[in-house]
Amino acid sequence: MNMVDIIRKKRDSGTLSREEIEYWISGTVNETIPEYQTSALLMATCIRGMTDEEAAILTDVMAHSGSMFTPQELGGFSVDKHSTGGVGDTTTLVLIPLLAAAGLTVGKLSGRALGHTGGTIDKLESIPGFRTDLSRTEFLGLVRETRLALADHTDDMVPADRILYELRDVTSTVDSLPLIVASIMSKKIAGGAQGIVIDVKTGAGAFLPKLEDSRKLAQSLVAIGSKLGRKISALITDMSQPLGLMIGNALEVLEAIDTLRGHGPADLSALCCELGAELLVFAGAATSHDNAVLKLERLLENGKALDSFRQLISQQGGNATVIDDPSLLPRAARKVEARAKTSGTIARLNALEMGRAANLLGAGRYTKEDTIDPAVGIELKVKVGDHVEANDILAWLHVNAEANLEQACGMIESAYVIDPSGAQHAPPPLIVERIAGAQ
Amino acid sequence: MNMVDIIRKKRDSGTLSREEIEYWISGTVNETIPEYQTSALLMATCIRGMTDEEAAILTDVMAHSGSMFTPQELGGFSVDKHSTGGVGDTTTLVLIPLLAAAGLTVGKLSGRALGHTGGTIDKLESIPGFRTDLSRTEFLGLVRETRLALADHTDDMVPADRILYELRDVTSTVDSLPLIVASIMSKKIAGGAQGIVIDVKTGAGAFLPKLEDSRKLAQSLVAIGSKLGRKISALITDMSQPLGLMIGNALEVLEAIDTLRGHGPADLSALCCELGAELLVFAGAATSHDNAVLKLERLLENGKALDSFRQLISQQGGNATVIDDPSLLPRAARKVEARAKTSGTIARLNALEMGRAANLLGAGRYTKEDTIDPAVGIELKVKVGDHVEANDILAWLHVNAEANLEQACGMIESAYVIDPSGAQHAPPPLIVERIAGAQ
Repeated sequence: MNMVDIIRKKRDSGTLSREEIEYWISGTVNETIPEYQTSALLMATCIRGMTDEEAAILTDVMAHSGSMFTPQELGGFSVDKHSTGGVGDTTTLVLIPLLAAAGLTVGKLSGRALGHTGGTIDKLESIPGFRTDLSRTEFLGLVRETRLALADHTDDMVPADRILYELRDVTSTVDSLPLIVASIMSKKIAGGAQGIVIDVKTGAGAFLPKLEDSRKLAQSLVAIGSKLGRKISALITDMSQPLGLMIGNALEVLEAIDTLRGHGPADLSALCCELGAELLVFAGAATSHDNAVLKLERLLENGKALDSFRQLISQQGGNATVIDDPSLLPRAARKVEARAKTSGTIARLNALEMGRAANLLGAGRYTKEDTIDPAVGIELKVKVGDHVEANDILAWLHVNAEANLEQACGMIESAYVIDPSGAQHAPPPLIVERIAGAQ
Repeated sequence: MNMVDIIRKKRDSGTLSREEIEYWISGTVNETIPEYQTSALLMATCIRGMTDEEAAILTDVMAHSGSMFTPQELGGFSVDKHSTGGVGDTTTLVLIPLLAAAGLTVGKLSGRALGHTGGTIDKLESIPGFRTDLSRTEFLGLVRETRLALADHTDDMVPADRILYELRDVTSTVDSLPLIVASIMSKKIAGGAQGIVIDVKTGAGAFLPKLEDSRKLAQSLVAIGSKLGRKISALITDMSQPLGLMIGNALEVLEAIDTLRGHGPADLSALCCELGAELLVFAGAATSHDNAVLKLERLLENGKALDSFRQLISQQGGNATVIDDPSLLPRAARKVEARAKTSGTIARLNALEMGRAANLLGAGRYTKEDTIDPAVGIELKVKVGDHVEANDILAWLHVNAEANLEQACGMIESAYVIDPSGAQHAPPPLIVERIAGAQ
């Protein structure tokens, strides 16, 4: 077996075997295969595609390229949730303690913000003392003891994904469905999850804004997860406007606390319960989807979910008092308002522009090396369907610096499309489609 | 401008601009663009293709990537001939002195043998003393003084082709029509030729055995040459069986001398006159193709072409006495015969197998580092259409070593397909098609 033949096979639209994919990935990880051969194969894959079977094998081989967590190590059936990335997407912060409160095992590995979308690790690190750099032993210890832990991805897990991703980024081979799916799913598989729900965002602020692309991605993720024996489903959910009302790291922690207390924004609460219900059914912790949703809603109302969040914070070194005293969270120096220029109904609210505006304030990263300001962000006062009068406040900007402030404020004002005609505008449907796996 | 955008454009079937191609090629040559980006673009090009206009620009940009010969330096309208590579293809050895004898300017850069096909440089180096490593000054001096010189490609010419070729070889991006055409034509353009004839071989022993592939290559070469302002045409010629009767370096020099004396094999003599006539017409040295062929035939008969070869040999340090005393050429230790197993008519003679057999004897190279034995080779006694009795000699093997001898002999015997039925078998047509340029 050699790379030249493997590259030629894919170039000519052939289907790679498990042996060929193993040869490629192991040679990539141990650096016996040069980058120029891997990039040629990535381009051939990007153009020629892969069958679901091939993508499933690639996912599995990538998952096995480094250290993994087995279901046994995690103490049995563990669940995971993945989002393709959104603006103001506070779901993971709510969902993790909520699922643990429902009796599920949640040993979650998560990522940082990049581009206009936020990252769970950054959000949690805005809680004073909270540690996400858990050792393997610490992580497993917490999962087995409390059924709950959340940590940053470590370098020894799925090294193939890191290597391929860096190369894809500089060779225009990012936009390949099988490569995207293998990148996402290999990390889920390596994390040991048995039940997986994917939140595939669609609309302006999503990684794939077009519904047909979001649907293809959801179908492919579910197909590959099913092929690898996981219980899996995907919800395609709205990201044309931001989710909830907060965008920014500490601001989203605040919003998560409100939601876990039962007082969160309706869309965020509903999405957490819908996503969570998928996993409760997979885990056999509910008899039906509706039953699962009811169960989760109750846990938000009765304080059990919030208790679970308190547990998560304190067991990972954080100051759990933030739950009762939000002033302990990082706070921006001042708030600046963005105001409506005209009266009317909010017809659209562009999530991408809002994410970019939050980044301008310092809430996100343009490159992996950038540092973020946990305190800054945007607090929405109105969303699609709401009525405003001219000069009403649309949103508060939480700011620490004057740089970019005017630009960010302008972006926010123009992200709101106000229709003065008096016509009604309903908020976009939260859950657009559900893609079920082969369970 | 950046490589990621350029790669993406070609990945998405876009057409690269001159500026983009210049950015790529200059960055490749000065090593500011990493190999993994170039290999991704090569793969995208291999799959997506290029327009003729793009391929012409790539050719031109590659030609300008190193030092070049201008028509002025070469003393005016100079001609060149390129073959896509064959077995026993002695045409260049005959054609170069023949064209010079016809009054044309021939400053030719040539290559070495690789794989199952021979190389002109290796053949000429079997003449004692003959030097092909001419300096730029020596080469130009000879061309201007005698209108005739033949040298090895130097490293400072078309460096882009060398770099790209090495990368294509290890990334399965060799089989790309625009990349093949740019590789061939950039060297012709850099060599300063104004009139070019391409001998595109077709059949078992050719680089592209299938006629439709040979035709596409010929059309593309002619289209790109025309776009770059060259007078150019291509002949698609038979390489299903070897050309002439000799395969091997010194053996082909002997055959070239015979042909230049007017006693060569009919197919080789005819092909040289047909290819040469194209160039005579381009150079305005003949009023018509038929007139040009007659003129060249006369130069073979009256000894002028042979005089020109004598001149070439002596001016480049070789012992021109070999023309009158062939025993001065390297000679193999012994001759071994391959014999017919049955009586009948030769229906086919596989050129590829004959080339491989000659390589087994030591006449060729498997890798660039291999050394060749100039003395060894194969001398055919019969070709397609000839009748043989069982046990008749098919060919002589000129050998210096016992290694591989039995295998080579077996390959030769099975390369001859003898039809015992008594049916007639005509030799394949020598010139299959002519592709004219836009003159």
